[in-house]
Amino acid sequence: MREEFLNALAAALGPKGLTRDPEAMAPWLSDWRGRYHGAALALASPPGTAEVASVIRLCAAHRVPIVPQGGNTSMVGGATPDSSGNALILSLRRMNRVRNIDAEAGLAVAEAGVILSELHDAAREHGLRFPLSLGAKGSATIGGLCATNAGGTQVLRFGTMRSLVAGLEAVLPDGSVLDSLAALKKDNRGPDLKQLLIGAEGTLGIITAATLQLVPLPEEVVTGWVGLSSPHDALSLLRRLEGEGFAVESFELVPAHSLGLVLAHVPGTRAPLQTAPPWHALIEIAGGHGVRESVEAVLSWALDAGLISDGAIAESEMHAAAFWRIRESISEAERAEGPAVQHDIAVPVAAMPDFMLSAAAEVERAFPGVSAGAFGHLGDGNVHFHVRAPAGAAPDWATTAGKPISAFVYDRIVAVGGSISAEHGIGQMKLDAFARLTDPARLKALASLKAAFDPLGIMNPGKLVPSLASEAAAP
Amino acid sequence: MREEFLNALAAALGPKGLTRDPEAMAPWLSDWRGRYHGAALALASPPGTAEVASVIRLCAAHRVPIVPQGGNTSMVGGATPDSSGNALILSLRRMNRVRNIDAEAGLAVAEAGVILSELHDAAREHGLRFPLSLGAKGSATIGGLCATNAGGTQVLRFGTMRSLVAGLEAVLPDGSVLDSLAALKKDNRGPDLKQLLIGAEGTLGIITAATLQLVPLPEEVVTGWVGLSSPHDALSLLRRLEGEGFAVESFELVPAHSLGLVLAHVPGTRAPLQTAPPWHALIEIAGGHGVRESVEAVLSWALDAGLISDGAIAESEMHAAAFWRIRESISEAERAEGPAVQHDIAVPVAAMPDFMLSAAAEVERAFPGVSAGAFGHLGDGNVHFHVRAPAGAAPDWATTAGKPISAFVYDRIVAVGGSISAEHGIGQMKLDAFARLTDPARLKALASLKAAFDPLGIMNPGKLVPSLASEAAAP
Repeated sequence: MREEFLNALAAALGPKGLTRDPEAMAPWLSDWRGRYHGAALALASPPGTAEVASVIRLCAAHRVPIVPQGGNTSMVGGATPDSSGNALILSLRRMNRVRNIDAEAGLAVAEAGVILSELHDAAREHGLRFPLSLGAKGSATIGGLCATNAGGTQVLRFGTMRSLVAGLEAVLPDGSVLDSLAALKKDNRGPDLKQLLIGAEGTLGIITAATLQLVPLPEEVVTGWVGLSSPHDALSLLRRLEGEGFAVESFELVPAHSLGLVLAHVPGTRAPLQTAPPWHALIEIAGGHGVRESVEAVLSWALDAGLISDGAIAESEMHAAAFWRIRESISEAERAEGPAVQHDIAVPVAAMPDFMLSAAAEVERAFPGVSAGAFGHLGDGNVHFHVRAPAGAAPDWATTAGKPISAFVYDRIVAVGGSISAEHGIGQMKLDAFARLTDPARLKALASLKAAFDPLGIMNPGKLVPSLASEAAAP
Repeated sequence: MREEFLNALAAALGPKGLTRDPEAMAPWLSDWRGRYHGAALALASPPGTAEVASVIRLCAAHRVPIVPQGGNTSMVGGATPDSSGNALILSLRRMNRVRNIDAEAGLAVAEAGVILSELHDAAREHGLRFPLSLGAKGSATIGGLCATNAGGTQVLRFGTMRSLVAGLEAVLPDGSVLDSLAALKKDNRGPDLKQLLIGAEGTLGIITAATLQLVPLPEEVVTGWVGLSSPHDALSLLRRLEGEGFAVESFELVPAHSLGLVLAHVPGTRAPLQTAPPWHALIEIAGGHGVRESVEAVLSWALDAGLISDGAIAESEMHAAAFWRIRESISEAERAEGPAVQHDIAVPVAAMPDFMLSAAAEVERAFPGVSAGAFGHLGDGNVHFHVRAPAGAAPDWATTAGKPISAFVYDRIVAVGGSISAEHGIGQMKLDAFARLTDPARLKALASLKAAFDPLGIMNPGKLVPSLASEAAAP
């Protein structure tokens, strides 16, 4: 039976399209952070949409679970198979063609396996940019970015992947191809079906290509760093900038403690300000010529008004890169300092400043010795909330102490109507918390969706959709 | 059985919440254009979300079909019950509270029955606006606007309802309440379930409230009218304006023939230009102080470059209103001239100029004597494509000749990857065309969705979802 399946698969995909070689498969059986390890029957690499459909039909006929993979950069184990060895890894990496760029319309059609940085380059050749970027841009693929509704550093202005996808092509679990690539700005033939696949983590179908919005390259980019006395002042400054009509692309909040860890642990970094305020913000604003002077004027007003205590605007691209390096080294610096439990959370933007302060205080009260802090995308209502181990904790502290701490943090998130996953998704890592903390109506709707589209339960099982079993068995 | 149902309903809703009085029900049994007429068991008007849930549970228990209604302004018979008299009309009009406006966050929470113009007023009191408007704003309700993913005249800049809904509350067909009102900018707990209900025309659940994006009032609005020699030049002008960073809110294309009909049939209108170019565009641009001068500079460049042949900028709000009156009177003027078959269609924006010209020529060739023309939202890739009767046609010409003409037009739309419904939806009017012209994969996905969420088939049956019967009966 299994041999029959593998033979049929080999015939459909050819020698380049299928491997069972342990060495070739090894890199794709663990997640990139080394937290999840699995096994697989084989690794399929179809070259096009029709072959993806063949793979899915064969898997359906033989009840073989499918684990789709792009760049394998999931933060929640979303692309790692379980340990049974029954699953087929479906790599989309060979589908790496930018099918078309229409510069006038500002649209690119990219296959699922196109790497984000390659799309950036292709757009730049047309004087345009794809306005979504993140740390893993050299590995993450368009298919994975769509399937996980990726965020990144420009969400404030351009939204997550969901708002940049103008069209989508996908293979559904029954092997049919849903072709919604045409970028229609208006289309009222029922609900927007492509929205079902965006953020579904491969549990409802396989995204094979997407039509993506491109935007003009900005004439000028102003990168600034300011010192503040509270997250509330940071939010007021952001509102002021937006109210004045600035195109604020990034607004990243950094507490003094995180900055201190970066300066202590990351070679070559230096303090961006002469003073030592308790809070910092890295701000990036795009605009036409003269935007720098306008930003300087607002910051100088903010200084006079006491909204900021200090500020610097990058004098060069290198200077701006140094600011960004600080922001992007926080996780690394925290790891160097000692164990920590990390949370990628969202609450309504207006509630964020209070939440950051009160949740940190509550966690520190409930778990004596730990220190808690948040940094990140304040303007998106999304911060990374880290709880650091008490001094002298064992290296595996996070594994042992992590669960109750995370449960405590997530309970607070739910109490203010927030999300336990702002941008990383659910995958296998947050499945238990998701099941425990989700409104039953929402959970049931998700299970209904799963049962309707994937009645065999072969699409990325064990990810995102909690305890489908009972649901799927129902008539 | 039926009496038992009605008694239970009366008990749940109280005397204000249920009527069977023929006179009270009459206005809600026909669509506003008088094209569809139905009958109903009763009219339920629940005051809140809990009561909507009770109604749905009772209807599910007694297998009573539900036809949800807001302002009853559907263009496709989407809110009119069938003639059986078995259905319950579920009016959301009593749920008319703006629950909250958070001016700083730019968010309003409005119940389903809030009338669009009332939301406009409420936002303006906070110095903000809700940037979606359309002709029926004095009747259309938030619930209906969400359920039909309404468009209107500002889609170019702000998108359709889908992109303005930050949160949603809905009652699903099993009576459970999906509460997604919290406006989280990032939330990666699976696919965005609220997207399922937006544009589903009440076939998957009942929207009871929405959290909506508000934006600042613009400092200045520039309304202009230009003369052009082709739709291609119109698109080039639009691209130029957007490329220069203008906030173009409306770009409405009007052929000379449509303008002529308005001037002939609508009292008090006068030609906006001294010259008589073959094509016209009404343009509205928002901005800060000085935007008028910048727009004038671009138009004067366009005149020199031969992209436009003439142009005028409104000198006052009254002058701007006169421009808009022309645009909004086209349908009325066409009706006064004689019968016509109307189509609300979309194609990718870049394909629109060619489509407008070639489809009109093809229709005129295929149906001798008719004249065809398109006007409307060029920048959205959405125009209203009207085919006017030959001279001397009978008043009911559209009824008799309409079907083959529409089929011909829709076939051309599908051939270029367009949509047979850009903004009006499917309802009952376009159900046959939708079934005939939809990609089977898409149709099956929609049917699966319907079967999963509404297995009893009680939610607005006969609208949007073609031939569900066989699907619903499957296990």
